[in-house]
Amino acid sequence: MQVQQILETCLYVDDLEAAREFYSQVLGLTLVTEMEGRHVFFRCGQTMLLLFNPDSTSNLESAEEAPAHGARGRGHCCFTMDEGDTDSWRERLNRFGVDVEKETQWPQGGVSLYFRDPSENCLELATRRVWGIFD
Amino acid sequence: MQVQQILETCLYVDDLEAAREFYSQVLGLTLVTEMEGRHVFFRCGQTMLLLFNPDSTSNLESAEEAPAHGARGRGHCCFTMDEGDTDSWRERLNRFGVDVEKETQWPQGGVSLYFRDPSENCLELATRRVWGIFD
Repeated sequence: MQVQQILETCLYVDDLEAAREFYSQVLGLTLVTEMEGRHVFFRCGQTMLLLFNPDSTSNLESAEEAPAHGARGRGHCCFTMDEGDTDSWRERLNRFGVDVEKETQWPQGGVSLYFRDPSENCLELATRRVWGIFD
Repeated sequence: MQVQQILETCLYVDDLEAAREFYSQVLGLTLVTEMEGRHVFFRCGQTMLLLFNPDSTSNLESAEEAPAHGARGRGHCCFTMDEGDTDSWRERLNRFGVDVEKETQWPQGGVSLYFRDPSENCLELATRRVWGIFD
């Protein structure tokens, strides 16, 4: 018996409004639902990307639906990028004023672009080849 | 232009050894690679689940491959559970001594089981119906 798939990926942000703009405008994600001061939820393919204000979710009193959680610091999340879209993504990030902090050409093939969301979370766009295990 | 899929989901843990045992034994995930003191990486379907020691990855000097990241506190991640497997998962968690902290039957259909990993991250097993937007 084993888990087969990730249904929700979570990051914590200190400015939900800025996060909503960034993830919808720059990354093109579709907003599913939001609660002022608490969360903004996006769909990303077959997974949900949940952005929480840890001040809200760390507090058990406000956690009506899920047990308390909440982290502080710079989280990490990586999105799949098609092999031929590297230039387009680099240009798009630049156009939105998002610095590409690092670009890595992996020895085994594939490429990663690293950048920050408005809360300094470390985001990555990578081709699936970087892991050498996916189709 | 939009990101289509999440390739890496990340949690931070304070005990990599305990995390390796938990995620492989209890959740049945396949270990892909590990680096003592820094990380343990698992495959979960078409996504990688990355478990990092934030003491290591928050330090730029040790971040040869990716920019610095690292969070502290209780993160969150949700795994997909098949509709008919709720009882089996509850029993499996109990058998491994993992408390089901909360079980939620959602008004729109679907069920969630909440529990903790050894670092107190808030984990969830949920049926895809809970979001009402996935096939």
